[in-house]
Amino acid sequence: MSEPHPIVPVILSGGVGTRLWPASRRSRPKQLLDLVDDRSLIRATLERILSIPSVEQPLIVANEDHADAIEDDLRDLVETDPVLILEPLGRNTAPAVAVAAHEILASQGDRLMIVLPSDHTIADEAMFTEAIAQGIQAGRDGHLVTFGITPSRVETGYGYIRVGDPISHSTARVSAFVEKPDAEAATSYIASGDYLWNSGMYLFLASRYLEELERHAPDIAENAARAHAAAIRTATRVALDADAFRACRPDSIDYAVMEKTDTAAVVPTDPGWSDVGSWSSLWAIADKDDEGNVSTGPVELVDVNNSYIRAGERLVAVIGMDDVVVIDTGDALLVASRDRAQDVKVIVDRLQAANRPELD
Amino acid sequence: MSEPHPIVPVILSGGVGTRLWPASRRSRPKQLLDLVDDRSLIRATLERILSIPSVEQPLIVANEDHADAIEDDLRDLVETDPVLILEPLGRNTAPAVAVAAHEILASQGDRLMIVLPSDHTIADEAMFTEAIAQGIQAGRDGHLVTFGITPSRVETGYGYIRVGDPISHSTARVSAFVEKPDAEAATSYIASGDYLWNSGMYLFLASRYLEELERHAPDIAENAARAHAAAIRTATRVALDADAFRACRPDSIDYAVMEKTDTAAVVPTDPGWSDVGSWSSLWAIADKDDEGNVSTGPVELVDVNNSYIRAGERLVAVIGMDDVVVIDTGDALLVASRDRAQDVKVIVDRLQAANRPELD
Repeated sequence: MSEPHPIVPVILSGGVGTRLWPASRRSRPKQLLDLVDDRSLIRATLERILSIPSVEQPLIVANEDHADAIEDDLRDLVETDPVLILEPLGRNTAPAVAVAAHEILASQGDRLMIVLPSDHTIADEAMFTEAIAQGIQAGRDGHLVTFGITPSRVETGYGYIRVGDPISHSTARVSAFVEKPDAEAATSYIASGDYLWNSGMYLFLASRYLEELERHAPDIAENAARAHAAAIRTATRVALDADAFRACRPDSIDYAVMEKTDTAAVVPTDPGWSDVGSWSSLWAIADKDDEGNVSTGPVELVDVNNSYIRAGERLVAVIGMDDVVVIDTGDALLVASRDRAQDVKVIVDRLQAANRPELD
Repeated sequence: MSEPHPIVPVILSGGVGTRLWPASRRSRPKQLLDLVDDRSLIRATLERILSIPSVEQPLIVANEDHADAIEDDLRDLVETDPVLILEPLGRNTAPAVAVAAHEILASQGDRLMIVLPSDHTIADEAMFTEAIAQGIQAGRDGHLVTFGITPSRVETGYGYIRVGDPISHSTARVSAFVEKPDAEAATSYIASGDYLWNSGMYLFLASRYLEELERHAPDIAENAARAHAAAIRTATRVALDADAFRACRPDSIDYAVMEKTDTAAVVPTDPGWSDVGSWSSLWAIADKDDEGNVSTGPVELVDVNNSYIRAGERLVAVIGMDDVVVIDTGDALLVASRDRAQDVKVIVDRLQAANRPELD
């Protein structure tokens, strides 16, 4: 890069991460948990992006209930605290990115913004930095850039991006966004070589995102603009107007904008990216012992293999089990087959229906 | 029975039941747990034997550390509290039965005594009563009677009794006591029809047991007699002399007496007897739901089959598992394959070596 291209990181901290229950809770969503190392996922995400040159003060879009916990978690990370844009309730990613774009335009003028989920890990930061540099070129040219990950296995838990015609040596048009496939479809995607995993990371000018949102989802654009304009502000918090934000139709950035715009671009990359979506994905990315186990806390294992054991205060003893997940917390315990870890959602739905306190 | 034959129940409450960790603890051994119904195992054992006519005030041989807990547990069970014979430490069953025999002789003269472990269940009490009536005949004739259970499956967790020549229509000599066999040997035992499970229940005159103990294990007989003679007594407690009882060689009644005496007899019976030895045996004897599961406490199951789930205060959620045991307690949690439930001992040994508090 010949000159600095300042970019504003926008971290999306919506959602609770129900598939990581019982560790994740309404009051303590997964991005605030130290699931991968001794940092929370959101802190790791910020440290990663702040290590890249020319990155400016970050914005975090979060549920207002988590504001204090996030500020506590990120204390001393940067000289001036990050600005929190607080949602009264979740409206998916299209409105969240819109209010962040408005905040950037209002406070510093048009800038490139890089939108990052707060619940993924990246092993190869140099490759990540390189991909961002490619994205910056396309973003400055007016593209709405997404980052597509070279798939390393048949994975049915991710969405896919079908790659279109090349724009440059490192950037291509997006031919289609594809929902989470079944195993057969995922196998054919990978065999074709034309598909990448949808990482949920984006890079574009704030103004360009708002233009395309206005074109393809004008109702969301209008309500998000109102929610931001009527926000209540302190030095580090922007509390969105509840009525206006509530009026936003909930929709994802992919559905509302990226699938419809003519200017979507994808940077293929392979930076050792993982979604921290479920206990099985946490097992997959972690360092394992000789038996293939990942364990934390006071644990005693006898003939246990390829399992993920997370003890809390109490002793967890496991005997003669393969491929299991055991998660112990103060008021709830999960024991699951590793390949059924996604079905934690079923338990969470039941607890929700019964209004149980183990979700709080 | 033409006339009443008063018999004194002697309940053996030694041992902790380590294979039922983490529910069983040094301070709260398995016989004090309500594992099968809403009564402790020891209370259920007493209620069962007290329902039989002509049964006198019971004796309980127990570790002195458990005296208060046992008295609390058995309060209001009988008009006058059972007498506790308190051991300063465990010395296996031969000395325990000897001190009980001395107590009977000293307090009421020679009587038939029925010796019962405190950790088994019996489904068919009428058949049990009938077997005792048969045993009374043989016991009055001077035999040392044991009760042999008709085997219902290939079981490697029990000792076996090889049946010898008949004594009466309902009683036979004992040809041999056989240690817990491997699966091959157990299969051949059952095919032969000559073997019964060793229930650990006995019936004999107090005087006859002591005579045979004197003959075959005179050292145990002498130390047990001294331990009883020098005991410190209150109305309901007989605290054995610690030095004398400690001097007793630890040995089982089968090894020390039953295998050696010429007067051993066995009453074959099939009263739905089960040893409550491990979590898998508790699963085997319990009523199950349509999926074959046994669960207590706050439990949420998704695609779980043939499993034993024991929750305590906290919610236990299990997903996509077959044939598992999950036991949750305040400070420790066990997750095990059901067919490995015996190996809880391995965990207990480790905790003992590390002097961990989760055994207390």
